[in-house]
Amino acid sequence: MFKDKLAQIIQKNDSLLCIGLDPMLEKLPSHIQKEEYPFFSFIKAIIDSTNDLVCCYKPNSAFYEAEGAKGIEQLKMICDYIKKNYTDIPILLDAKRADIDSTNEGYIKFAFGYLQADAITLHPYLGRNALSPFLELKDKGLFILCHTSNNGAEEFQELKVNNDELYKVVAKHVIKDYNGAENCFLVVGATYPRQLEEIRSIIGQNMFVLVPGIGAQGGDLESTLKAGLNSNKTGLIISSSRNIIYASSTTDFAETARGEALTLRNNINSLRTL
Amino acid sequence: MFKDKLAQIIQKNDSLLCIGLDPMLEKLPSHIQKEEYPFFSFIKAIIDSTNDLVCCYKPNSAFYEAEGAKGIEQLKMICDYIKKNYTDIPILLDAKRADIDSTNEGYIKFAFGYLQADAITLHPYLGRNALSPFLELKDKGLFILCHTSNNGAEEFQELKVNNDELYKVVAKHVIKDYNGAENCFLVVGATYPRQLEEIRSIIGQNMFVLVPGIGAQGGDLESTLKAGLNSNKTGLIISSSRNIIYASSTTDFAETARGEALTLRNNINSLRTL
Repeated sequence: MFKDKLAQIIQKNDSLLCIGLDPMLEKLPSHIQKEEYPFFSFIKAIIDSTNDLVCCYKPNSAFYEAEGAKGIEQLKMICDYIKKNYTDIPILLDAKRADIDSTNEGYIKFAFGYLQADAITLHPYLGRNALSPFLELKDKGLFILCHTSNNGAEEFQELKVNNDELYKVVAKHVIKDYNGAENCFLVVGATYPRQLEEIRSIIGQNMFVLVPGIGAQGGDLESTLKAGLNSNKTGLIISSSRNIIYASSTTDFAETARGEALTLRNNINSLRTL
Repeated sequence: MFKDKLAQIIQKNDSLLCIGLDPMLEKLPSHIQKEEYPFFSFIKAIIDSTNDLVCCYKPNSAFYEAEGAKGIEQLKMICDYIKKNYTDIPILLDAKRADIDSTNEGYIKFAFGYLQADAITLHPYLGRNALSPFLELKDKGLFILCHTSNNGAEEFQELKVNNDELYKVVAKHVIKDYNGAENCFLVVGATYPRQLEEIRSIIGQNMFVLVPGIGAQGGDLESTLKAGLNSNKTGLIISSSRNIIYASSTTDFAETARGEALTLRNNINSLRTL
């Protein structure tokens, strides 16, 4: 199951780093922009240069959808490439989906049938019942948005419901009612370390949390780890995308991305030992 | 802008009916399943037989994504077909998206660049700030989930925040803070007429509400209209999908769909005059 696959690769690569695979045509090195499958070329090179440094790859669907059917085709090429060459690295499809239950079946076919992803991100707003087709997938990982990384995340997520903010209610529901198959995880932005610490105390030591927001969005690594690591100095998946994949825009982009990924992986590990 | 386009087609077709274009391969008539572009063939026939009866077509992205790049290609073919042949009928992409602002740009390219849709459905959980790239699109329609139609929608949506349930807070924020460009709308399930009535009283008379949940999901038409119509006996978009598009699974499917659509359009109109 996803949880075990994640534990194994964390150990093998000694890494809590997840690289977000978020290509934008105009940001790719110019020699790649001209290729027939520029996203695939670019991301393949990133993967080839970083696969011993990560615990997970996280393609965000939006960047592929932006290019229509051709983008989706390349997203599949990328997932197929990972499955074939780096089968021990889980693919977390960052799609932030959620619809009524019968419609979710379509998203399940997309994420787990067509793309063969290992995990997906989901919105909580429709509740457990709507998400049940996902929750029944015992082998997959379901990352439910809890406190997002964006400015203004507090608008609804920090509304007080009795004595708890909404994001805490979401965390409590997920740990208590959603996680029978131990396939649930949360998403908490690095830009909100206090909230991450509170969420860790709600969910206990076993549940992993995906943490976007380090780097371009301004989240601080040290306070994130301090707030979110469990008692085994793990339990977090630290995601970074732009700072790694766009570290250079010339022919050395893959090597430069590797350098950035190595630095971040090592920085995370140094802070884990404190 | 979307709002005007919607008003014009409502008048022209004398209809508040929206047909959900939600194809599933295994439910299509068998002679169509074998075609190269079965979704396109099927939906094209539905559109050709119902275009004088609707105020809107609503393809749900999940059903197309289920077939991968080929599904997305057909979704584009369908949108192109509507744009070319029935240019006055708005396309509402039911995609239930929402991510941080920079990522939403990808979804915007997909929905409004690639597909040329007129409107999209969105999750509220990340708040206004994250949705701002959408809110800036003055010509488009943004349908924000308020109270969804599914069983268990109340899990988060009816949590009490001070004296208001969360769905009411969402409705209040949208009408007060999101709608500067008058491009915002809400989604409220027909299965919750009491809540629809409360939402109408919060948002006033001008804002349209998309109402899924009639038919297969069990929403009652009369109580929906009673609860949600504005003082001009309009203000609702009543969506139906399965009951119309799968009314017959043989060669007469398009005619039969027309019959169902006509009946529902007329039933809605009869109830509007009460």
